[in-house]
Formats: sequence, structure tokens, C-alpha cells
Amino acid sequence: MALIVQKFGGSSVANAERVFNVAQIITETYKQGNDVVVVLSAQGDTTDDLIEKANEINPSASKREMDMLLATGEQISIALMAMAIEKLGYPVVSLTAWQIGMQTSSSYGSARINKVEARRIHEELDRKRIVLVAGFQGVNRHHDITTLGRGGSDTTAVALAVALKADLCQIYTDVDGVYTADPRLVEDAQKLDEITYDEMLELASLGAQVLHNRSVEMAKRYHMQMEVLSSFSRKPGTIVKEVVKVEKTYVSGVAQDKKITRIALIGLEDVPGMAFRVFNLLAKNKINVDIILQSIGRHDTKDISFTIDESNCDLCVKVLQENQESLKFDHMDVSSDVAKVSVVGAGMVNNPGVAATMFEALYEVGINIRMISTSEIKVSVLIDKEDTERAMRAVHRKFFQ
Amino acid sequence: MALIVQKFGGSSVANAERVFNVAQIITETYKQGNDVVVVLSAQGDTTDDLIEKANEINPSASKREMDMLLATGEQISIALMAMAIEKLGYPVVSLTAWQIGMQTSSSYGSARINKVEARRIHEELDRKRIVLVAGFQGVNRHHDITTLGRGGSDTTAVALAVALKADLCQIYTDVDGVYTADPRLVEDAQKLDEITYDEMLELASLGAQVLHNRSVEMAKRYHMQMEVLSSFSRKPGTIVKEVVKVEKTYVSGVAQDKKITRIALIGLEDVPGMAFRVFNLLAKNKINVDIILQSIGRHDTKDISFTIDESNCDLCVKVLQENQESLKFDHMDVSSDVAKVSVVGAGMVNNPGVAATMFEALYEVGINIRMISTSEIKVSVLIDKEDTERAMRAVHRKFFQ
Repeated sequence: MALIVQKFGGSSVANAERVFNVAQIITETYKQGNDVVVVLSAQGDTTDDLIEKANEINPSASKREMDMLLATGEQISIALMAMAIEKLGYPVVSLTAWQIGMQTSSSYGSARINKVEARRIHEELDRKRIVLVAGFQGVNRHHDITTLGRGGSDTTAVALAVALKADLCQIYTDVDGVYTADPRLVEDAQKLDEITYDEMLELASLGAQVLHNRSVEMAKRYHMQMEVLSSFSRKPGTIVKEVVKVEKTYVSGVAQDKKITRIALIGLEDVPGMAFRVFNLLAKNKINVDIILQSIGRHDTKDISFTIDESNCDLCVKVLQENQESLKFDHMDVSSDVAKVSVVGAGMVNNPGVAATMFEALYEVGINIRMISTSEIKVSVLIDKEDTERAMRAVHRKFFQ
Repeated sequence: MALIVQKFGGSSVANAERVFNVAQIITETYKQGNDVVVVLSAQGDTTDDLIEKANEINPSASKREMDMLLATGEQISIALMAMAIEKLGYPVVSLTAWQIGMQTSSSYGSARINKVEARRIHEELDRKRIVLVAGFQGVNRHHDITTLGRGGSDTTAVALAVALKADLCQIYTDVDGVYTADPRLVEDAQKLDEITYDEMLELASLGAQVLHNRSVEMAKRYHMQMEVLSSFSRKPGTIVKEVVKVEKTYVSGVAQDKKITRIALIGLEDVPGMAFRVFNLLAKNKINVDIILQSIGRHDTKDISFTIDESNCDLCVKVLQENQESLKFDHMDVSSDVAKVSVVGAGMVNNPGVAATMFEALYEVGINIRMISTSEIKVSVLIDKEDTERAMRAVHRKFFQ
């Protein structure tokens, strides 16, 4: 018997049929003698529909009222799921964020979880009830409803698992685990049985989009074992934990990210502190920079190139143009026709030559590398966007066949 | 400057355009220097849509989960209205039942309000904010969400007005006041400027459907002045209060109710206690009985006829059939082809002849009276359903022309 936290995303509960499918998974876990706490997202398009309603009335509505509106989506999900589980004949109770004391910071739309009062949930578990919790939402110190922003429901699940000292936190999604590459792009991608938190973090930030980084970071900090699995296939998924078995391959996956923009500042004055001034300016404007490359330019100048998320492109260009005089660069080059391909693996640090193997794979299919970035468990390259799928397949083949 | 509680029903906030219309009414009241607290219902068909979703999953879902589901409708309304008022440039905050401490009994689906903690609302009013409150919902002592059942939002508004010691509780609806008869049926129906709580209660229970009885009863108990008015017409409505000006007409309105069934028990044994046994049995089954008529039958028996709401018909027939042996009646006659027409007026008690005048009006147009019931401020008659509109017009003409 164990205490298991399960999280189901919006597509897993999108309609009545899927609600019952998930209700089956939950009640089977309960029947096996486990205490079960379930975190649910809003059904399918509910959140988008609510945002559309809000935009029709006031596109610049306050974030507080937006959170008041959006939090209803998850509340609808837990009530409907409770009804389905009642129909199957099991004891169940649904609870909102304020009912379980999910205390967050005050920043509406992107609140951070401060504390979870587990008392009510423990009471309900003691009464042998399945407990359904509304994901994505919290309550701040003003007793106002907040939402957690992107990846919110995953984060709710891990936070609850930590607070309840759960044995496992299962994240049900529409893929049946973490793969060595996106199976839609690379046919021979293989599902991983296990992966470390760090590898998962690199894969998530590299665009693998299986788990959100916030939830993995929290799981890593509190050593909470996670499992990524599918609510449709009913097969074992991928376990995310601290250390995985030593005999595993030293590269755990290949990932891509096409939603990036490369910006190059050409002809910067070659004086100390120039890089600091550029990136400090971007940081002040909350623009995250990924790969950075600095090269010597012509005539006592240098060039700095870097990549950012494409959603930050307009803001970044505006900020840099406004400061062109003080930063003293000659001109700016902005390109969205780029993509990032990365190999990730905790074993990489003890296996020299991973980068070389990756570059060889790209060379063999004639793909030009524009920028390179490495960390202890990752090698990323920037290439032309049109080469992405070809690069993914070539690199994957090199490491996994 | 006054503290005004305003309540807007579902049709008044059904779409973005109507939301802005109501936002205008609210902000105009605020601009005049008033403190404004607004109670909102769920938009248009939202509640029906949620019930449909629930029925698809589990038609016999627990009332607790049904309340968890339905309470989202009002939460969506207050968030969207807050966004509209923000757009108009006024300070506003939306609050749910748990945020304002709307404490109710535990009976899900039909909770009674026990107490309102007005602290949060007073704080927000002190900050010069317009306060929007989700109607129809509360929180019970288990910290679970309840709903108040039919007429819930009207009741929320009056309860808040009482708790906040408001100067006036305005109920905005889709009619612009209380009329001497339904204006859709009787062309020359006149809007009343004032009406007493008691008259309003009789009219509501007689099917006038402007205000729900629960809210009027509460307003009467706490002497809270109400105003019924339209969110579409922007004209003064009808004031509901304790005493109205003495020179007013002694009859305030004519009402009809077609949703009734008449049941006659024929050939009951003529022994003491028979009426008690019949109506005690119905009371135990929570069947409300309206008009009762007892007559002598043939051969030492008597007949008892009574009317009930048509929604109770099946249950009533079943209960009576099951007890036919012990009640010893010969047979039962059930008719739904009947309607009730009533005249109501607090002045009636000092004006003999109201009943006679009503009967005269019906006689003049050849309508047969099947049953009669009177109270201090009301005379009701049961007639054939097909005669309803003709009877309404005839009686109204007699008293109001």
C-alpha cells in the first residue's frame, strides 16, 4: 500500500468518455489498496474558451480577475471526475485550492507555491476517500485566487506529493513516456525506462515538452520520484529520479527546439564590460538568453550572437534598438530561420567524444552548424530550421543504433 | 451617499454586450457617490450547460459535487463583470462565497444562509472599490461549497444587504417592475410604484415570478427595502416595503398559475380525523397543498379536493394509491386542466366585497368557478385552464378600470 499522487492533463479529461477512462485508472489504483490523490487540469479547450470570453470584454483585464475566471476550469474538471467516480461506486471528494490550503505568492498568473496545508487531504484519505484536487491554482495571503502559470498542474501534483510525503507522483499525459527523440519525427526513437532529474530538465528546456521544468525542479529538490505515462495506453512509463542504473546508455535523448530566434549584434566596440552591459539590459527586461557566442569582428570590434525564445523577439529587438547608441553596435541581424538540436545524457560527463560524435553525424548528412553550446550533460547546436528533422534523425541514428 | 446592493440575473449578463450594459448601471450608481455591492447570477444558459455536462456523466451525482460544479457559473460572471468595469476605468474586485464568508447550512443544492461575515466587503468598500459577489452560493461548516437552490441569487442579495446594513437592495431583472397583472397577458396591466412585502409574497406564490419568496421573506423579516427594476429599460421600478401609501388601490394585482393539478378523493368515509390523515400523509412526503375543498358526498361519505404543484403530481398519486386501503376512499380524480387566478391586495381586508366583485367579473364572461380559497389579502379561484387568459383580463378590467 502506498500514497500515490496522479496528475491528468486537459486532453486526458476532454470529454465524458475520457473522464471515465481516467476514472478507471484512478479507481484501479485505489482498488490495489493505495491512497490516491489526483490533480486535474481544465478539460480540453476550456481554458482557451474562457480566455476568449475575457478578451471579448477586456483584452487588458487585470491578472487577478483573469485568475478568478480561469480557476473555474479546473473546478469543473474535479466536480465532473468526482461524479464519474461516484458512478463507478467509489468514495470520492473534490477539493479546490483554497479548500486544501494551497498557499502561493501574490503574483497573479504566475504564482509560486509557498506552502500546502495537508490537513484536509489527510482527513479525507483517513476516511478512505479518493481525493481530487484542482490543479493550476492557489490562494495568496490576501485570500485571493491565483494561478500558477505554465506547467501549473504538474507543479501542483509534485507540491502535493512532497507535502503528503507520497511514494510516487505519476504524471499522465498523451505520450507514454520520455523518448530518446520525438517519436513523431524519429521513427526508431526508443522509450526510456528511467531518466535522471537533470536529464529531464535539460530535455524539457530543450523543447521535449513532456514535463514542465518547474515540476521537475521541485521533484529534484525534494527527491520525489515521478513517472511520466499515458492515460490512453495503460503501459509503464518513464521513471524520473535521482540516479538511474549505471549500465544505461550515456546519452538519454535527442531534442529539438524550433521556437527560437537568433540575434547578432555586429560591430560592438571591443572594450571590457560590453557583454555584461548587453545581457544585463536583457535580464532587466526579463528576456531569457540561451546560447551565447562571441567572436572577433573586423577593425577592433567584436560580434555577439545569442538565441532567445521567439516570443521575446519583438521586445528584445525594441530594447536593443533603444539602446543602440549606448551599446555602440553597428547593426543588428535577426533570424528566425534557425533551430536547436541537442543531445542530453548524465553519462556524457564521463564519456568524452559525445560532442564530436554529434558533429560527425551532422557532417555526414551535410548540415552546417551555426552555433554550439555545451554543458556537463548536454551538447546543443544551432542549425538552419529546414534541416531540423534531418538532423534529428541523423544524430539519433548515430547514438542509438 | 448610500450603500446599495444590486442584483443582476442571468439574462442581464448573458453576453458581452449585456455585461457592458450592466457595467454602465453599476458604475453610474458608483459615480453618484454610492458604495455599491453587486450580486451576479451565472450567465444565460451556463447553469443549464453545466447540468447537461453532469447528466452526461452521472445523472444521480451527489449534490455536493453538483454544487462544486454549478458554483463555477457565478464565479465566471463576477470575473467577466470585473473585467468590464476595469475597462470602463473604475476600481473593482470580484469575490466568491468563501471569500466573503457566506456561511450556509450543509444541505447541498438548497442551503440556507446562516451568517455573512461582512469584513472583507467592508474593507474593499473602504478602499473605494465596487464589490462584485458570486450569487447563489455559500460555504458550509465543512468548508464545502453549497448552492442556495431556486431564487438563490435574490436571496444572496438580500442577505448581503441585511448584513451590510444597506440602504436599498435593487433586484434587476428582465421586467421593469411589479404589475397589476402579467403585461404579456393583460394589455392594460399597470406598473405598481410600491407594494408591501405581504402582497409581494402572495403574488410570488401565485405565480407572478418576479421575485422569489425566500428573498422577500428575508427582506420582510429584516425590514430591508427592495426595488424590482429592469436592467434594460433604465426606468424606476417597484419598491417593495412594509407599508405603502394609504391612498393606493385596495387590490394590487391579479395573478395566474397554470402549473397546478387538482386531485379529488371521492367517497371518503365520513369519520373524524379523515382530513388530518390525508394531509398529514402528504406533508410527510413533502407535498405542499394549496387550495383545499371538502364537500359532502353521497351515502355517508365525503369528497376532498385539493390542488398541488404539477411537479408533485406523480408522487402524490403514488402515495395516495399506496394508502387507498387505510384512507378508505372510493376513487381518485386527477385533473391538470385547471388554473388558478387570484387577486391580491393588503387593502382588501378593509374592503368587503372584493371576492364578490371578482366572482361577478368571471360570471359576466361566463367562466365557471371550480374551487375558491381566500386569505386576508387574497382571493383565489380555480377555473378551467383554457379560460385563464379570459379570466385574467376580465378580473383585471373590473378592478383597474
